[in-house]
Amino acid sequence: MTVTMARIVLASLVEPGNAVLARLVRTSGPAEALRRLLGEPEAPHDLVTLSAAAKARLGDRDPWRLAEDARSAADRLGARLVTPEDPDWPTRADELARMSRGGATGIDVDSQPPVCLWVRGALPVADTVDRSVSVVGARTATPYGLYMATEISFGLAESGWTVVSGGAYGIDAAAHRAAMSAGGRTVAVLACGIDTVYPLAHAGLFEQIADTGLLLTEWPPGATPHRTRFLVRNRLIAALSRGTVVVEAAARSGARSTARRAFQLNRALMACPGPATSPTSEGCHAEIREHHARLVTTPEQVLEEVGRIGEYLAPPVRGRATERDGLDDLAARVLDAVPRGHAISAAEIAVVAGVSPTDARRNLPALVARELVVEDDHGLFQTRRRPSTRPAGRRG
Amino acid sequence: MTVTMARIVLASLVEPGNAVLARLVRTSGPAEALRRLLGEPEAPHDLVTLSAAAKARLGDRDPWRLAEDARSAADRLGARLVTPEDPDWPTRADELARMSRGGATGIDVDSQPPVCLWVRGALPVADTVDRSVSVVGARTATPYGLYMATEISFGLAESGWTVVSGGAYGIDAAAHRAAMSAGGRTVAVLACGIDTVYPLAHAGLFEQIADTGLLLTEWPPGATPHRTRFLVRNRLIAALSRGTVVVEAAARSGARSTARRAFQLNRALMACPGPATSPTSEGCHAEIREHHARLVTTPEQVLEEVGRIGEYLAPPVRGRATERDGLDDLAARVLDAVPRGHAISAAEIAVVAGVSPTDARRNLPALVARELVVEDDHGLFQTRRRPSTRPAGRRG
Repeated sequence: MTVTMARIVLASLVEPGNAVLARLVRTSGPAEALRRLLGEPEAPHDLVTLSAAAKARLGDRDPWRLAEDARSAADRLGARLVTPEDPDWPTRADELARMSRGGATGIDVDSQPPVCLWVRGALPVADTVDRSVSVVGARTATPYGLYMATEISFGLAESGWTVVSGGAYGIDAAAHRAAMSAGGRTVAVLACGIDTVYPLAHAGLFEQIADTGLLLTEWPPGATPHRTRFLVRNRLIAALSRGTVVVEAAARSGARSTARRAFQLNRALMACPGPATSPTSEGCHAEIREHHARLVTTPEQVLEEVGRIGEYLAPPVRGRATERDGLDDLAARVLDAVPRGHAISAAEIAVVAGVSPTDARRNLPALVARELVVEDDHGLFQTRRRPSTRPAGRRG
Repeated sequence: MTVTMARIVLASLVEPGNAVLARLVRTSGPAEALRRLLGEPEAPHDLVTLSAAAKARLGDRDPWRLAEDARSAADRLGARLVTPEDPDWPTRADELARMSRGGATGIDVDSQPPVCLWVRGALPVADTVDRSVSVVGARTATPYGLYMATEISFGLAESGWTVVSGGAYGIDAAAHRAAMSAGGRTVAVLACGIDTVYPLAHAGLFEQIADTGLLLTEWPPGATPHRTRFLVRNRLIAALSRGTVVVEAAARSGARSTARRAFQLNRALMACPGPATSPTSEGCHAEIREHHARLVTTPEQVLEEVGRIGEYLAPPVRGRATERDGLDDLAARVLDAVPRGHAISAAEIAVVAGVSPTDARRNLPALVARELVVEDDHGLFQTRRRPSTRPAGRRG
């Protein structure tokens, strides 16, 4: 049996990410791993257990036939298989094998790299995910969350970055759609067979993604989505991309498992803030508070995290420029002391500004020249414009 | 001239925070400092400059008379003077003298401790600010910001903490009012004389604060508020409290100068997140991104930052508890594989769950006993409740 066929059978009989199988494949290669799995292993115990489960799943079917069936089912859908032996394999996924186990739970037995990938879409896989960011979040997103997912994904796609997400309702769908509407590339990583549309209402969306981007999955044709599969799939979303942005997420949210994986993989982990009163922002705030996710509000800030050092520098947030901007500190203090509505002398201005009369007299002519201050016929000064002298002008 | 009278004159002739005066008072004491300031200093140059400004401000008035007038003006308002010689002096303010100059600008010449404080309200100053948090933010607050300021301040006051703020419109007013409505203590630190109500619409608020909390200012009676004074005052808000929470702040906002001071003073710096689309949250997000302000959404999280270590531990954000919570990982996986709407065998469940048939058979009875799974007369299983088996149950 060829390596490729062995991988298809392994992916059909063992759930993705399985640590026992990954170890076996690493040490023996896929064909030998399959032979041992379907043989009568006596040790180690976890291989015995896995073997029993795999054989139960195979039933009385022939492994070769199983692989052929999976292959032709994929063929009918125009899907292709990509394996680690393929030059188009996204090698970043293999970093899952070396993932740290910070905050490990039992589910981490399912965190190993994929055995193979079924793919729909004409783009090369490795190149498409090379410069990619995952944008993930709540299915029950708010209009605010959908807006943020759209803004961020559109901006990333416009900058030539691929947007990776999970094809779900809410944030995922908004991310995919925004990337495509920017004329960019998007990748949906599924938790079921490439022949299964879940959710069903996303049939059109998935066709559009297959036309312009990629649909990817580790599960063989016929596999249905269920809860554990979504969580297992999330590690791949995190692994394929250079960073993960959680746009909206409840305290308990699958998006947080993707965030966890991004963190364990040492990928950039980012989260959008939202109203503290919004349950769908609780998970984002918790990621920022508890796991040092970087707070991001714009695609530029995301690119600053995932780009090469210095490649992108998001402009720091600045308010509107004002007339005061060009002034040195002394001139600004003098300006602040000039009243509006009534005129006072340079000496009085000095008192209010807390500067020497000489400093006040030296700085006033420049303020007059810039039309910030008006001098009347009696040599008294007042300001021209309202914003410059509001006592609390910088507040709020 | 007594030390107290000298301090009043100094505070009347030199703007608060002045570094030249602070140095002079530290080395010579207030009375000698005043003598030198009003004498004919020949060096250093910055003292010569300050002396000229102070003399211009004094004009032809008698310093003693100036102090007497300030004192009787304060007396008429029921205000008292507190000086560093007083046991009620809030010594935390003196840490301004040792403040780091991270991100220093010219305005930092005005960052020294106050020379004295005018106070309205019956509470002792030092004790009242000992356990205090500053809650500051935009004047042009949104309803969301006002809600957050209210929630946080109410919670802090309820826990026995004093809420310090600046008496301004918006976040400040909401913070003061919430603390008082919780029956707690609040301190308004003003940027003008104790006889001046700014903004005028807060006359009632200030009376209420004076009745139950404290009004404080470094400026002598008669001093009017202006822009520089607000910024100088902000250092005192930061210095008096154990930490500062920025609730809402535009990118350019006076509240950010308070945040800057809190950071430089090594006080807890916190910020509330808000919608990324809200200009009045931009400053908060920038503080979290650029200056490592801690993101806070509840009074408990604020107390965790300012309390003694271990005194307060905010509960981590958790979603609603579900029936799955008590299950170990294996049982949860088995449960997730049990379908809803139709019943399947234990062997089939094992396949979907990716566990051995033995493990599936071992775990199902407990799930049935917990009424999470129903076994029918044919020994087939399905789930009872909807939330447990939704494929993407943890998402969103």
